[in-house]
Amino acid sequence: MEKARIAIVGYGNIGRGVHKAINKNEELYGDMELFGIITRRLDVVSEEFPTIPVYDPDSANALRDIIDVAMLCGGSKNDLPKQGPYFAERFNTVDSFDNHSNIPEYFAAMDKAARKNNNVAIISAGWDPGTFSLERVLHDAFIPGSHTVATYGLTKKGGLSMGHSDAIRTIKGVKDARQYTHAFEDTIERIRKGENPDLRPGDKMWRECFVVLENDTDAERSRVYDAIKKMPAYFEPYRTDVKFVDQGELKRNHSDMPHDGLVITRGETGEGNRALVEYRNEWESNPEGTASILVACARAAHRMKQRGQVGAYTILDIPAADFSPHSKEKLLKDYM
Amino acid sequence: MEKARIAIVGYGNIGRGVHKAINKNEELYGDMELFGIITRRLDVVSEEFPTIPVYDPDSANALRDIIDVAMLCGGSKNDLPKQGPYFAERFNTVDSFDNHSNIPEYFAAMDKAARKNNNVAIISAGWDPGTFSLERVLHDAFIPGSHTVATYGLTKKGGLSMGHSDAIRTIKGVKDARQYTHAFEDTIERIRKGENPDLRPGDKMWRECFVVLENDTDAERSRVYDAIKKMPAYFEPYRTDVKFVDQGELKRNHSDMPHDGLVITRGETGEGNRALVEYRNEWESNPEGTASILVACARAAHRMKQRGQVGAYTILDIPAADFSPHSKEKLLKDYM
Repeated sequence: MEKARIAIVGYGNIGRGVHKAINKNEELYGDMELFGIITRRLDVVSEEFPTIPVYDPDSANALRDIIDVAMLCGGSKNDLPKQGPYFAERFNTVDSFDNHSNIPEYFAAMDKAARKNNNVAIISAGWDPGTFSLERVLHDAFIPGSHTVATYGLTKKGGLSMGHSDAIRTIKGVKDARQYTHAFEDTIERIRKGENPDLRPGDKMWRECFVVLENDTDAERSRVYDAIKKMPAYFEPYRTDVKFVDQGELKRNHSDMPHDGLVITRGETGEGNRALVEYRNEWESNPEGTASILVACARAAHRMKQRGQVGAYTILDIPAADFSPHSKEKLLKDYM
Repeated sequence: MEKARIAIVGYGNIGRGVHKAINKNEELYGDMELFGIITRRLDVVSEEFPTIPVYDPDSANALRDIIDVAMLCGGSKNDLPKQGPYFAERFNTVDSFDNHSNIPEYFAAMDKAARKNNNVAIISAGWDPGTFSLERVLHDAFIPGSHTVATYGLTKKGGLSMGHSDAIRTIKGVKDARQYTHAFEDTIERIRKGENPDLRPGDKMWRECFVVLENDTDAERSRVYDAIKKMPAYFEPYRTDVKFVDQGELKRNHSDMPHDGLVITRGETGEGNRALVEYRNEWESNPEGTASILVACARAAHRMKQRGQVGAYTILDIPAADFSPHSKEKLLKDYM
């Protein structure tokens, strides 16, 4: 089997996870390999991986016919809106664009770019958006009229939110911060029982912040505490606990990036027979979990391109078999 | 929108559930309607539904161009192996063929039959095989090298197994019976912890039997008890509890058909970071739950036919969007 040549664009947490997932898939199934890394930080990345080809983004045109799929591992806020269409014109792409409300707009831009040169662009892959989106659509189709809620942070430690951690770090006087999202178990129980409560964001989750201050004084604690609690959208609608710690403790206890979530659907069949579907995932490393899903999408993108499909797609448009390393015969025999 | 005309072939528990699910989808989304019921029991079904057209299976040829999708609601053991190909030659079909080890053979027969007249045949839909198969494939693709186990009967009452209930009823002297499957919670916990135990069937589930005897004597109890406990494949490998009850109690407490199950996948990303995915469903009425999934597959079959697809498919070959009543725009905006 010829291996699909996968390039990583941007080498942050997700890019690092994609690297490991490509290696794992190559080792287990031999159907893909890392072609190289495309990054503006040529020196840093080359030094870490002296044997891996590293390219500047400007060399994209020269790499067009050599790379099978480019994994866009930049951020949704500043990187992907610009980088996405640029690379989708030149390569088949997979990304994890996760700004939910801008997905229709991003889809349109990526679709237009990908079609220019008959490429496939799989957007917004990962787990939310991603597998959670897939489950929302399936549950809704399989239990018509049902009610679906997603919630996050069901584990004891909770789910680390990079976005909320970054938001705290924008406050003056904050040196570093981590924010864990926690689910309310009793809200989940109410949904399971079919109460279909009219949930506001603050009914589903609460937020736990660990904050390191530049100058840890009572006055600073009070000011930063207020600034966090009052931050609209991020913290104001939620029960928010704030704990001040030193940098050592943050590093010791809060360096990991775990995250988890649950999609729960409650409905009825016939005349009032209860139906319940729950989909839950837990990732000790959230960026690696996201990356692992992205790499299965690279397999799908490569196949879709080979079949002559063109344009932008989401995980909703792709049959499960396309993500799988196994043959149709094996899937029918061992997975059905 | 023109409504897809759906016919029900065979009016047992699944057929009855399909009937309700078609009505629910028509009411909510208006994209399908019940065309009629095809059954050998013309008199009985006509009497129950005087306003619904009822046809003999022999009239299938005359109905060929009128029915959009035929829902094959017969049993996997005696009905579908014969009926399936017969109807797939004449209609687009959806069925719930659930004899796991014969799926490759059934797929081949249905594929051949459907291709004769450019039809689409979706086989083995429902939840296992069906959504559980889909989850097994997705989890395996998204967490390469992971370990997946399915188990059943996590609710207090357990999951009613028609196959095992029928098996007890084949024993001489048994008037009626119900069998509930129960999961072992501690086995699930071991999988969650990543122990990947080498599970035999009896490690995952135990079986609870409620039996009504023709003649309830101590000697009969002892004989039937032994016959159940020793029945190979069905009971012999499992911890099996047998309770003798009278017909009144069976009717009062065991007339429902609940079932539930869990697909649990434990693996790793990167170098040893834990990854866990769990998919669980609970149906107060198992046949209605299966039927509800089948009817979403009818929507997909109709669309696939309109796109010019041909042959046999499973739930693994169909994008989630095809099951959904919602537009592509709505899915991107509200479900991603």
